[in-house]
Order: sequence, then structure tokens, then C-alpha cells
Amino acid sequence: MSTVLTVAAVAALGETDQVVTPWEVAGTAQGGVNYDKLVDQFGCQRIDAALVDRITRLTSRPPHRFLRRGIFFAHRDLNQILDLYEQGGKFYLYTGRGPSSESLHLGHLVPFMFTKYLQDAFKVPVVIQLTDDEKFLWKDLSIAESKRLARENAKDIIACGFDVERTFIFSDFQYVGGPFYENMMQVAKRVTFNTLRGTFGFTPEDHIGKCCFPPVQAAPSFASSFPHFFGVNDQPRCLIPCAIDQDPYFRLTRDVAPKMGYPKPSLIESKFFPALQGECGKMSASDPTSAVYLTDKPKVIKEKIRKYAFSGGQSTTELQRKYGANLDVDVCIKYLNFFLEDDAEFEHIKKEYKVGNMLTGELKDRVVGVLSKIALAHQNARAQVTEEMVDAYMSASPRPNMFGTHSDYVKS
Amino acid sequence: MSTVLTVAAVAALGETDQVVTPWEVAGTAQGGVNYDKLVDQFGCQRIDAALVDRITRLTSRPPHRFLRRGIFFAHRDLNQILDLYEQGGKFYLYTGRGPSSESLHLGHLVPFMFTKYLQDAFKVPVVIQLTDDEKFLWKDLSIAESKRLARENAKDIIACGFDVERTFIFSDFQYVGGPFYENMMQVAKRVTFNTLRGTFGFTPEDHIGKCCFPPVQAAPSFASSFPHFFGVNDQPRCLIPCAIDQDPYFRLTRDVAPKMGYPKPSLIESKFFPALQGECGKMSASDPTSAVYLTDKPKVIKEKIRKYAFSGGQSTTELQRKYGANLDVDVCIKYLNFFLEDDAEFEHIKKEYKVGNMLTGELKDRVVGVLSKIALAHQNARAQVTEEMVDAYMSASPRPNMFGTHSDYVKS
Repeated sequence: MSTVLTVAAVAALGETDQVVTPWEVAGTAQGGVNYDKLVDQFGCQRIDAALVDRITRLTSRPPHRFLRRGIFFAHRDLNQILDLYEQGGKFYLYTGRGPSSESLHLGHLVPFMFTKYLQDAFKVPVVIQLTDDEKFLWKDLSIAESKRLARENAKDIIACGFDVERTFIFSDFQYVGGPFYENMMQVAKRVTFNTLRGTFGFTPEDHIGKCCFPPVQAAPSFASSFPHFFGVNDQPRCLIPCAIDQDPYFRLTRDVAPKMGYPKPSLIESKFFPALQGECGKMSASDPTSAVYLTDKPKVIKEKIRKYAFSGGQSTTELQRKYGANLDVDVCIKYLNFFLEDDAEFEHIKKEYKVGNMLTGELKDRVVGVLSKIALAHQNARAQVTEEMVDAYMSASPRPNMFGTHSDYVKS
Repeated sequence: MSTVLTVAAVAALGETDQVVTPWEVAGTAQGGVNYDKLVDQFGCQRIDAALVDRITRLTSRPPHRFLRRGIFFAHRDLNQILDLYEQGGKFYLYTGRGPSSESLHLGHLVPFMFTKYLQDAFKVPVVIQLTDDEKFLWKDLSIAESKRLARENAKDIIACGFDVERTFIFSDFQYVGGPFYENMMQVAKRVTFNTLRGTFGFTPEDHIGKCCFPPVQAAPSFASSFPHFFGVNDQPRCLIPCAIDQDPYFRLTRDVAPKMGYPKPSLIESKFFPALQGECGKMSASDPTSAVYLTDKPKVIKEKIRKYAFSGGQSTTELQRKYGANLDVDVCIKYLNFFLEDDAEFEHIKKEYKVGNMLTGELKDRVVGVLSKIALAHQNARAQVTEEMVDAYMSASPRPNMFGTHSDYVKS
């Protein structure tokens, strides 16, 4: 586990350094999260232009803006997945969510939007884990409430447009058992408490539910956990799109996989969607002033952006015209980086805002427009999601013909 | 957890003291296991004549010889179960086995024979857990082999004569999931690693599968783990017949139960069936010279008893006639205590052997006869067990009318 950012190592970094774990993301006081440093600490690889080009070529479609803009910026063994795909081999996508709140915020959409793009581009199956057990274990939530939130969150995920013929959404309380449980035990037998202490900072005073959980998050990395969905003959490789704070879980999974006789899952990892107050961390669903919710109406979005979105612009119109804005700390610019599709317009806005031709109020109006459109589209899509649709996505039954291959795609 | 025999406490006992954990039973060098001391250390209660009388009265049948002879000798809150039964309330029995070997030995029959007696006497349902996950985690066994052994062991358990209309046998790899998994997580959230360290001696160097398991053994103590078997309206109390080495698991379960809103399971606990070499511990299925297997033919049983059964008799006929035998250390006497039904004959043998009227060879012949009869009866019963019967016992489907009550019994 030499690549693990241990708790001891985090402590040794000192006060001016960042902390990134699955439960805490804190940038430095000097600025945002230092992603270059994180890549080095975690030991993952950067996604460079050549890799984006390769994805573009293989999928015969433009790369998602999350790739063009370096939002999904790091990976582990992504080339192996692309090699496999090029050779006609099979892979699937695995992502997930901890259902801790009823309302998702904009940042929660990022992995799902990107996973849907990958599903469409590669024509591959997706498994989506709702870790209601994790939220029960870590939060002051009943099991019933965790399960209810999982189902509500499933509706938001379905609204992202996943192909029901290629997608299995499951909650742990619903699905753990059988071959999935067998893989959990295969993982658990090969991980010590000391490893969890080093990876996640667990202590002997913590309840053992915490020790029980990492194998639950590891299990979907192995196709054999889903015999009904994949069948027992197909053992496709796994690619995990996630935010980089989930990396510790999958470093652990990758360490264990060969000992279980399975290939290591590959990863494609994103930066965090910043809070309204700036890039000191992720948006938090538990702090309503830190986030734009998917349920927010345009009026609310307007208020939040105007009132809370940290600006890199000057304090008066005159100063802004004279000195221009600091784009590096401006939250609106960061939000446009995530959600404004048009590259030319985005470059134009950055240029104009930086030199002072654009004022903070104008920029904020544009951001309100972009985010409102996304929120409204999501609200409309979610309103179409019926309980029957949730049941269909959450059914473990087989999905015939869910695998595309590179050659299929080239033919089509 | 003040009643727990901690590892530290065991260490403090010194070399001359006994060690009893779910994985190790070692009596003192001076003699066998000191059960009086164990009861005090563990903080359970003794089963006295008044309690045996009460069971006799309530069940309107003679007490099992395991009760008459003090083999099931300790309990926790057994009176609460009897009170409940007397008032027409419902309870069920929960016992289990770790399927680490193909062949069971005579000692393995003890909890199942006794549980079957309790089932017949009280007309109550039984759940029997086969901890194939535990054996996978602790032993050098594959999951497939653990599952195979669980099913083979189920046949031996079925051969004990449980009522299929009142019995659910399950393996963890088969059954963990749903409400059972929910109860596992409810337990896990309320137990710390430090508690497991104190109770079972786990260390941070141990794999976390060990931490995952105690909640699995705790879950069957709660009727809500079996909604298909018990229905969702019935929440009967639980009585656990087991050997006293399993007490740490259920002390932990009893500590947690009230925090989950459930009553504590009650326990009725047995002494260990001694190895052929004497009461320095339990029989071990991994040492073929230490045990009489249920598959042994009479010829093999004869050889084993003659060759290995530790004798309290004198070394020559003359000395035996003159001085008689030491019954306290004689394994054949202990085996008869477990398996010779006739009290009068048992008392006669003890008396004659003690004063030297009976020789060791004569005693051993009688023991060979008793054990051979039990082994042959078991072999015959097991030969009748079909795969379809195993499926029926291992089906989680409802068993209507599986609860008897005291008033039913009195009427019948």
C-alpha cells in the first residue's frame, strides 16, 4: 500500500496542506485543492491530450467537456480499458452515490453526467451503487430513511438519461447477498484493520460497521458480483468514474483484486465541484448556502449565485474595468467550466472578464442562465420518472445485448 | 461489557488457568475445564434442580439426559423464556455450526440432539445457521468448499430428526442479505473494534473479515432477520442452545439488543464433549485420533476406544480389582454420561467401576456398544436424507402453524 496517502502522512503535511479523504475535502488556506500534488500523493496518472484524443478516436464522437476541460483529469489503467475495447473486449462502468440527503446538488450530477456520456459513447453497461448501508453507518439515519433516500436519489440518477437496457441501479440494503457477499468476504479476508487505519484513518474506538463497509464498496468492481445482470459467462473488466476522493477505496480494491484472481478495476477520476464560497472543498448537501440544488427554481439560483458565489472580480465597476478579475478563484468561472458547453463562448467570457470588459454582475447573470437551464431540464426529466421505472432500473434481471464493441460502433 | 472474559484477563490468569474462546478451549494441566469458574468468569447462571423441574413440568415429559446429568449446565435468562411460554407467548430456538469438515464427530451431535429435544418438548421453530463465511474467513478453505461442507453438514443435522415444518437451516453465503443484513449493520454500528479486541482477542494485524463476522452470528438472535420464515407480525423471543465457548458472541449480542429495540436472546449452554485423550479440551475434527466420527463403523469405534480413550482405571486387572478407578478423569465414563440413556445402568456402572468390580475392558466394551448404536442410527438416518429434503429444510418459505404454546401442549 505504498501509494496510499496515510493519515499519518496527512498529519505530517502540516497546517498549510490539503486533506482529501472520502469524508473530508479541505484545500489549503492559500487556495484550492492542489490536484497536481494529489495525483502525486495518490500515485495515479494524469489524463493528457493524447489520451483524450484516443477516446475521441475510439468513440467517433467529440470528447465530453469534462474531458476537454480537465475536470476528469486523472486515471488508473484507463489505457488497458481502451486497449481491451479496441480489441473487441468487454468492459462495464461502475459508479455510485451515498444517499445522505433527499436533494442532490449540481456537483452530484458530475459523475452521473460523465458516466452517461461514457455509456453512450462506448455502448457499455453501467452498475450504480447506492450505499444506503454506508449512510446508515456514518450518519444519524435510520435504515428505513436511508433506504427511502436511496430510492429518491435513484430517481435523480435515472433522470440523467441512463439506458435502462444497459443499467442496473441497486441499493446495498436491497442487493447485498449471494455472489456479491462472497466477493465482500474475499476482499475482507485480504485487508487488515491496520490497512484501514492507514487508508481511512479508522481507530479502534470506531464501530466495526466502518470496517464492514470498504468490502461493500469494493465488490461492484468485480463482474462476478452481478451474475443476474452480466450472466455467469461474461466477466467484463470494470472502469470506475468517480471523484478523486473515492480513490482510497479503489486503491485498496486494486491491491486485493489480483489475490482474488480478478483484474484490477480501472479508474477515471474527477476534480471536485466547488462550493459557492469557493474551492476550499466540495459542495455540501448539509449546508444549504454552499450549494445549488437540483430542485432550486431559477429565482433561488439567482439569489444564491448573486449572494454567495465567491467572485474573483473587483469590488467596484471602476476597479473591475481597470484591473479585471482573478479567474483562478472565481466560482462562476469554475461553474461555467463544468456546465457551459460552448467552448468559444467560454473562452470569450474568460477573456473579457479577465481584462475587465465583463463585470461580475454580467458574469453571474450568464451563470444563473446556464445553471437554471440545467436545473430545469433535470426537474422536468425527474418528473417523468415513475416508480415503475425505478423498479425497472433496480431490477437485477438480465439485460440482453447490453455490450457494444468498438467494431459494432464502427459498423453502425 | 463488564462480564466479558477479556484476553487481558485470560493472560492474567496465568499458566495454570484455562482458556475458553470460540476458537480455543484449553483446560488446565491439573485436570479438565473448571466449569464453575467459567460460569463465574462469564457471568452466566447455573441450571439448578429447580429449573430442571420447571422444564419437566412445563413440557410434561422427562427432562433430557443432558439436563438430568448437568451437561447443559448454564444459562442466561432461561426463566424469561419459560415465563413467556407459560403465558402463551412465542419463542424460537437458534443454534448453528461452523462447517469446517465433512465428517462430524460425536461431540457435534450434542447441541443438535438437545435442540431437537427442545423443539419436540416445546413445539417451537428452530433456525440453524451454517457459518460457511466464518470457516472461509478463518480457515484455508475456498468459498466453494465452505458452501459444499455446509450442505453436507446440513444432511447430518437433518438426520437428527428436526421437524421440517418447524425448521429453517441456512448457510450464510446462501442467506445473508435483506433484513438479515440490516440487523448485521444494526449490530455493527454499536460494537467497536476495541470491544472485539477485548471479547475475542482480535488485533489490528488481523484481517477485517474477522470484524465482519460477529454481526453475522448475532443476527439470527433477532426474529426480524427471518421475515419469510416467521412472517413480519410475529417477533418471537430467541433461546440459543450452544456450547459455552460461544458465550462471548452472545454476550456481545445481548449488550447490543436493547439498543436495537429488541429483547436480549436467552441462552442455554453446555459443557464440552471431551476428546478421547481426556478433558483437556473439545474433540477436534482436524485430529482423527481425538474423535469418534459419526461415519465411523463399529470396528473403528472399537479400535479408537480401546486404543485412545483415556482411562481412569488401574494399569492391571489386579490393581483395578484392589483400588478401583478414578471416574473424574475417565473418558469412557464421560461418554456414557453423554450418551447412555438409562440412569440406573449408568449409576450401576459408575459404582462397579469405581470399586474395581468392573474392569476397564468391560467398561470400554459397553461404551463401544453405546457409541456404535448411536453412530449406526445416525448413519442410517443420514442415508435417508435426499437433496430434496435438504432443499426443503433450507427453504426460507413460511412454515404455517410452527408455533406450539404451553396451552396447546396441555390440551394435546
